Amino acid sequence: MKRINIGICGLGTVGGGTFNVLTRNLVDINSRAQCDIHIAHVGARRDNPACDTSEVQLSRDIFNVVADPEVDVVVELIGGTDVARQLVLNALDNGKHVVTANKALIAEHGSELFERAENNGVTISYEAAVAGGIPIISALREGLAANKIEWLAGIINGTTNFILTEMRDKGREFADVLAEAQALGYAEADPTFDVEGIDAAHKLVILASLAFGMPLQYNKVSCEGISDIEPADVAYASELGYRIKHLGIARFIEGQGIELRVHPTLIPASRLIANVDGVMNAVVVKGDAVGPTLFYGAGAGAEPTASAVVADIVRVARNLAGESTLQAMVPSLGYASDALEDYSILPIDAAETAFYLRMSLEDKPGALSQITQILSDEGISIEALIQKEPHEGETRVQVILLTNRVIENQMIEAIKKIEELESVSGSVIRIRVETLK
Amino acid sequence: MKRINIGICGLGTVGGGTFNVLTRNLVDINSRAQCDIHIAHVGARRDNPACDTSEVQLSRDIFNVVADPEVDVVVELIGGTDVARQLVLNALDNGKHVVTANKALIAEHGSELFERAENNGVTISYEAAVAGGIPIISALREGLAANKIEWLAGIINGTTNFILTEMRDKGREFADVLAEAQALGYAEADPTFDVEGIDAAHKLVILASLAFGMPLQYNKVSCEGISDIEPADVAYASELGYRIKHLGIARFIEGQGIELRVHPTLIPASRLIANVDGVMNAVVVKGDAVGPTLFYGAGAGAEPTASAVVADIVRVARNLAGESTLQAMVPSLGYASDALEDYSILPIDAAETAFYLRMSLEDKPGALSQITQILSDEGISIEALIQKEPHEGETRVQVILLTNRVIENQMIEAIKKIEELESVSGSVIRIRVETLK
Repeated sequence: MKRINIGICGLGTVGGGTFNVLTRNLVDINSRAQCDIHIAHVGARRDNPACDTSEVQLSRDIFNVVADPEVDVVVELIGGTDVARQLVLNALDNGKHVVTANKALIAEHGSELFERAENNGVTISYEAAVAGGIPIISALREGLAANKIEWLAGIINGTTNFILTEMRDKGREFADVLAEAQALGYAEADPTFDVEGIDAAHKLVILASLAFGMPLQYNKVSCEGISDIEPADVAYASELGYRIKHLGIARFIEGQGIELRVHPTLIPASRLIANVDGVMNAVVVKGDAVGPTLFYGAGAGAEPTASAVVADIVRVARNLAGESTLQAMVPSLGYASDALEDYSILPIDAAETAFYLRMSLEDKPGALSQITQILSDEGISIEALIQKEPHEGETRVQVILLTNRVIENQMIEAIKKIEELESVSGSVIRIRVETLK
Repeated sequence: MKRINIGICGLGTVGGGTFNVLTRNLVDINSRAQCDIHIAHVGARRDNPACDTSEVQLSRDIFNVVADPEVDVVVELIGGTDVARQLVLNALDNGKHVVTANKALIAEHGSELFERAENNGVTISYEAAVAGGIPIISALREGLAANKIEWLAGIINGTTNFILTEMRDKGREFADVLAEAQALGYAEADPTFDVEGIDAAHKLVILASLAFGMPLQYNKVSCEGISDIEPADVAYASELGYRIKHLGIARFIEGQGIELRVHPTLIPASRLIANVDGVMNAVVVKGDAVGPTLFYGAGAGAEPTASAVVADIVRVARNLAGESTLQAMVPSLGYASDALEDYSILPIDAAETAFYLRMSLEDKPGALSQITQILSDEGISIEALIQKEPHEGETRVQVILLTNRVIENQMIEAIKKIEELESVSGSVIRIRVETLK
């Protein structure tokens, strides 16, 4: 069998996982790849005690790997965007195929890298960049290729899903669960990237580009995190038959463009994705032919991510061993690059969703009717309402509403008016609601 | 762009859906395939009023399609195994690639067809043969290629899942729901194929061969249907925190071989797959690196199935246009054919599962302890037990047990002894339980 030489850059969590999975399952992997995959060179600043690299050429300078003339495929697992970008560009310029798990790199620099790859007659694969071990990239690029994708919605950040799950199951506060997630290693010391939705936005923009066939436009994703979610909202959502999930949503709106948004979302508890808990990830894709599909699995971790990295390695190695032309290989975004459509990304304030509203209201006659009047004047109808009796000694009640679908701007207007009412104290809590049908 | 000519044989439900999806989404599909896919020839005994074939060459004799020198890819959608087998063999011998949705054909004649394809330097694709629009074949062949698959379990027959869902939601009888399913077109006039698990067995054997890299061995699947399931069992299962699903299960047992079994199964209600309802399909795959993954979607129907057929067409067309060698293409069962492992298929009576038991017991002192004694003597422990008070005027009670994991043969022995007790009337109902962890 033909030998294909792999160079791995980075031997941290994912790099170590990739090294170990590839080594452990090599016989089967080679049978699948129909060639002899060989780890020819590993670049890592330091050893990973979980990996036995004694029989592999090891460089402390990762740039030695991309310069190695023996290496056919460079696997970039160092993370970050600056050095990684330079490393990948060098690899491509040296005529090497690249496999990466780096979502930030693809989301922010993908267009540049894809073009460079095409010009050099090589490919970049990035199955591991979104939702870890779930083969969602190839599902969008290949498995659902027959479909016009209408929308997709995903739990694509395990940290926020873990936090929201704990908040629901145990009625805990956000900050409290976040601290635990940090202790468990599910959240970084600086959690902004996860809890404010930046990581999810990186992944969403990749999924959307694949689904709709458009260039990557990371800076246009509208993004809200979960740090303002309170246990009360999680509980009221349950009472209404919903769950709060932090979703990345991309939707094609005929004749207008694409919605790209990351935010906490109420979804009916009966939806399969509403039952995806803990650190697990899932993506629902709605195609015009296939209808709704869902892909579920571990979104992070050494070996789940390695599973996706190695799947890419197998695919590239098989193509290399079989001497595929570039035309026979799946293009970077699934579409021929000159066929990508530059859809407009719609502003979030034009998005139409239903809303969950929670407000603190004075417990006196007429207070509620002022609110329903404002909503009615704005053409917003109420689908469900909870008003709890005030706790003893209190004079304020919590009012929770579910509205019909309404343009966001209109809802913002209505909320402004509600917040101006004397009987309403503080701000109105507002969470978008999607039925995902 | 290079033109790739498609010949479609069969214009029934799936054939018509394929024709329509391909026609409707052709611009996007061609951008994804990087070539010009052209329906050159359609073979169908009669027209499908849903399809406008006015601009397509149409033959009443489907064998004209496989004989047409213009056709590059034959799409077999006639169903059945006799004519379909001959048609596919002819197509392969004529050097044409084949795409099929025919699970019975692949399950029963796959080995012959795959060998013939390889000898002729062409491929057979069959993504649509299992779980309709869910890209589970490519997930196993490619997306999870890094993994040693430990087990998989799937709801792979929509009819039985619809029936079990209705039985649970509405407390209805099997026969009653079956009649409705037939009226709705979810079940055939002769429902044996679906409700006795034959269809699921066809699909399971395909999934298992892909997962473990072994030849197709349809005749070795152990198969039980759902026609004996009573509403009482569905209700008791719920009470115990479980749901009854008709699953196809394949499990690799180190050093022994492979379990291949289709049967009703109690699974914990908290599992995601336990919440897959109605006619929908889902497959859970547990890999050593990725952990548990789940793939969900429509398992049947014109356009969901067409979604998978067209995905195969795109893949083959891209490879043809790019002049791929056979070595660059994914082998029929994911593994190089000489690397398939001829694992033994284990007999069902050696399988280890937990059990749900229900029996009708005389309401008198000592009756229950006779039963617990028999189980204890056989080394079977009881994990949960429900005994209801007898209805007024009755002298018999229903006793429901969940056992620990035990070898099937051992359980059969214990049940024989229980059924011999004077205090037990009729047979003991027995349903396997899996935690799917």
